Amino acid sequence: MASSSRLALSLRRIRRCPSTFPRTPRIPSLTQVRWTGNTSATSEPHQPNGKGGVQGGPTPAKAMQFTSDSYPELKRDSKYGQINKEHVKFFQDLLGSESAVINDFSSDATDDIEPFNSDWMRKYRGHTKLVLKPGSTEEVSKILKYCNDNMLAVVPQGGNTGLVGGSVPVFDEIVVNLQRMNNIRSFDEVSGILVADAGVILEVADNYLAENNHIFPLDLGAKGSCQIGGNIATNAGGLRLLRYGSLHGSVLGIEAVLPDGTIMDDLSKLRKNNTGYDIKQLFIGGEGTIGIVTGISILCPQRSPAMNVAYFGLESYEKCQEAFREAKNQLSEILSAFELMDGRSQKLINKATGKKMPLESEYPFYCLIETSGSNTDHDNEKLQTFLEHVMEASIVSDGVLAQDQTQIQELWSCRESISECLGHWGGVYKYDLSLPISSMYDLVNDVRNRLTEAGLVGDDELHPVVDVVGYGHMGDANLHLNIPTRRYDKEVEKQLEPFVYEWVKGKNGSISAEHGLGIAKKPFIRYSRSETMIKLMKQIKDLYDPNGIMNPYKYI
Amino acid sequence: MASSSRLALSLRRIRRCPSTFPRTPRIPSLTQVRWTGNTSATSEPHQPNGKGGVQGGPTPAKAMQFTSDSYPELKRDSKYGQINKEHVKFFQDLLGSESAVINDFSSDATDDIEPFNSDWMRKYRGHTKLVLKPGSTEEVSKILKYCNDNMLAVVPQGGNTGLVGGSVPVFDEIVVNLQRMNNIRSFDEVSGILVADAGVILEVADNYLAENNHIFPLDLGAKGSCQIGGNIATNAGGLRLLRYGSLHGSVLGIEAVLPDGTIMDDLSKLRKNNTGYDIKQLFIGGEGTIGIVTGISILCPQRSPAMNVAYFGLESYEKCQEAFREAKNQLSEILSAFELMDGRSQKLINKATGKKMPLESEYPFYCLIETSGSNTDHDNEKLQTFLEHVMEASIVSDGVLAQDQTQIQELWSCRESISECLGHWGGVYKYDLSLPISSMYDLVNDVRNRLTEAGLVGDDELHPVVDVVGYGHMGDANLHLNIPTRRYDKEVEKQLEPFVYEWVKGKNGSISAEHGLGIAKKPFIRYSRSETMIKLMKQIKDLYDPNGIMNPYKYI
Repeated sequence: MASSSRLALSLRRIRRCPSTFPRTPRIPSLTQVRWTGNTSATSEPHQPNGKGGVQGGPTPAKAMQFTSDSYPELKRDSKYGQINKEHVKFFQDLLGSESAVINDFSSDATDDIEPFNSDWMRKYRGHTKLVLKPGSTEEVSKILKYCNDNMLAVVPQGGNTGLVGGSVPVFDEIVVNLQRMNNIRSFDEVSGILVADAGVILEVADNYLAENNHIFPLDLGAKGSCQIGGNIATNAGGLRLLRYGSLHGSVLGIEAVLPDGTIMDDLSKLRKNNTGYDIKQLFIGGEGTIGIVTGISILCPQRSPAMNVAYFGLESYEKCQEAFREAKNQLSEILSAFELMDGRSQKLINKATGKKMPLESEYPFYCLIETSGSNTDHDNEKLQTFLEHVMEASIVSDGVLAQDQTQIQELWSCRESISECLGHWGGVYKYDLSLPISSMYDLVNDVRNRLTEAGLVGDDELHPVVDVVGYGHMGDANLHLNIPTRRYDKEVEKQLEPFVYEWVKGKNGSISAEHGLGIAKKPFIRYSRSETMIKLMKQIKDLYDPNGIMNPYKYI
Repeated sequence: MASSSRLALSLRRIRRCPSTFPRTPRIPSLTQVRWTGNTSATSEPHQPNGKGGVQGGPTPAKAMQFTSDSYPELKRDSKYGQINKEHVKFFQDLLGSESAVINDFSSDATDDIEPFNSDWMRKYRGHTKLVLKPGSTEEVSKILKYCNDNMLAVVPQGGNTGLVGGSVPVFDEIVVNLQRMNNIRSFDEVSGILVADAGVILEVADNYLAENNHIFPLDLGAKGSCQIGGNIATNAGGLRLLRYGSLHGSVLGIEAVLPDGTIMDDLSKLRKNNTGYDIKQLFIGGEGTIGIVTGISILCPQRSPAMNVAYFGLESYEKCQEAFREAKNQLSEILSAFELMDGRSQKLINKATGKKMPLESEYPFYCLIETSGSNTDHDNEKLQTFLEHVMEASIVSDGVLAQDQTQIQELWSCRESISECLGHWGGVYKYDLSLPISSMYDLVNDVRNRLTEAGLVGDDELHPVVDVVGYGHMGDANLHLNIPTRRYDKEVEKQLEPFVYEWVKGKNGSISAEHGLGIAKKPFIRYSRSETMIKLMKQIKDLYDPNGIMNPYKYI
């Protein structure tokens, strides 16, 4: 039990967030890296060739390895047609201008095409010769019908901010980029229902909603680049899921084009509509494999004027679970985030950046809590009561509460900068997993023990592994297991795989919580899905895309 | 603008709910009517034969009209096999006891079978000779495989509380009733995830969760009888949707048996799982046409200790919309219901029951607001601020606030007793519709004008129509359009249909907001869905149920 003097001291700390610790030094933006948050959700170091990595700056686009080389087992399927001048003429006639069709038949347009051929992580790179930018649903329909009739493979592309290589070609698939379809179609202030083109940038949609006192029910590090159509196609999770739920609940309608050119006009603006199968749900998380989402209708919540953020130190993972239970109980309707960071992840931020951390002592675990509500006084009072309770009951050992927007950002940076800081030593093996909350952190311990026993973890250059850390969206039972390394090491990979996937399977967890399958996770789906489910999924794929032209070599 | 004295008076009224108005007299329970809330969601009077109705008591089961007679256009499809002794022996051997299989081959079991052959409204009645009550998912699998192999048609049945005739046979389809599968499988207090058999009664699940400080994210008048598997199969909406969203968001996993006996093991207990198409969504609202839901996993919110209910009078529908906008804005995270009742519906409650209404004056519109939160003082203060604002701004003309649980129930009865009270004069034409909020009430006015111009509305026996009223879940844009009548009248029906459906179609609304299609709405789906969508739905039906054995003659 906490003595009253310790408690008083702790509460004083909780009342005021020290403004002394500096903001996390940001790793400078890389030319081709459009955003810098979150993990890569893959099991490979940042740069598979071991030459680049976070330290080394970006690999120049033209020097990047092709996906077809890093995945030599993938062969171009000969059933797909080769793009010829006749095809190009059709698309140029349809889309009407050079800005709509980029190709390298008439001239060398490689530089124009390259950003569409490779992903922001500089990890996946395709060979496309053709990028189409339709301006309307009808144009998307004509494109897909033509491709389907001519057996031309297609990759739908939004903001190209994905983490699993789903939005870039593997071979010469035609890129259909939605960036020109960027209109807000309507917003109803009474119902909070927004209807918009798929190509609207998430941040643009959210800013538009802000002017109308609402928010988009999804928030992501990539919000400045990602498109809402891509968010729907990948069933993005993000920071607001704990509070506003998944897109399967908030998306009310979808307009999509099927591979044969059929326009699926399911753009309902109704909260309730029980007239038949909810087919649009298949497109949420369908990763562009059964059609292209061109428009969405989504229910948007009111914007909360009050926001608080607190950061705690805790003695064990059991205490973190207790704190989460109490937060759900006492903060209830105002709780908007509950994030977990282990002590090792926080120590590595300090090592990598020299940043002073918010609490004086070190703890094996830290939690970050955010509340959002309509009344500042009420939220403060609820949070104060909660804090007193968790301190008195010794659930939380120490903590600080942000006093202003700057401190809110400072505390958030202790969670958000982990991913970047871990790259400091060279590369990071990253896994994005869903697990039952109760056993979520056991995996981190088991992996650390396993690598330690194999003699791979240490403080010096002799050991490839710097440490094994865990953090993530505790409120969603979403663990980011990260293994920062000094160099690419086959032995480390052998210890990790299939061990991690088998461990997750043993707990009925998911090998991809929020980042999707793309090309990165396709080989591992059997660890999360039964043969029955995979068979049922393949049926769906065959039903909508019998020619298999949509986003091939990926997903299931 | 309100004068300050009027405001003061109004606020005094708002502060205290008069305890003088008596509780609504309840129409006595009818033997076969297991619950008495909500509309029938059909366009026919309570008793299509005109002899029964709310006044006349229940039609005895054996005297009820068969669905095959009220829908003479439906013919038994000869592709389905007739049940013979060999089939019965298979099922008896499988399910092991007479309580598991009721049939009328060995003895006259009509009385035992009748409750499974007819619905609680006494409106739909089938001819089944066989009711199966499997006790496990494996037994459901063996039943469906056998039925599929022998072309025997099947009707899945839960609590049989549906409103559109979806859960009873039309001809001799075998009833597969889930009532014996009634185990809670697990509950995780930290994540709030409940896993349970499909046959668990909703109220049993909610009571179980109450002991664990949680609630089921769905509440219905039928909670004492309906089963959670049926709730999922019909995508039930209910009273908590405004706050906790639709089942498409809260259901995390489904175990279902496909017509060929395949067990779809998608019973994930994860909030996030991006590994392939979300096929389970097709079963939410699939109305038992592509398989039988046998188990569900669902995310359950914390139970709110504080609850408030207020009841307002308003001068126009525009003011109701303003009040809703303000409620969303100011009550935000604690708003749990916003219900609309027009003045005519409230007047008819008074006429039918003599009940004194909560407000002294009469208004053209009334709203009921419910808040649920974690802190009573905070909720009271928010509500008080909201009330002062809507009174000062003359959005609301008068109002009362419930002071205790009894008064909460009294105020709710002004909304919940409408459906029953409207049956007082004979029968009611009832429509359950989704419409854009802004034009929702226009339909009620248009229908009233139309029937009045046709000379059908009046105060005496010469006129069939008593009045045209509108009420519903304003927070979900879900209108219940009700036309209480003195008698069945062909002329009234001619004025209503297809007028109502065409009107809804013109606003891109839905002809079934929350009650589903079943047999009642199947002929009208084209008013809410395009040919493209219907074609895509039929593809899904054919994919999962190529023999068409599941719940035939219904849905799409």
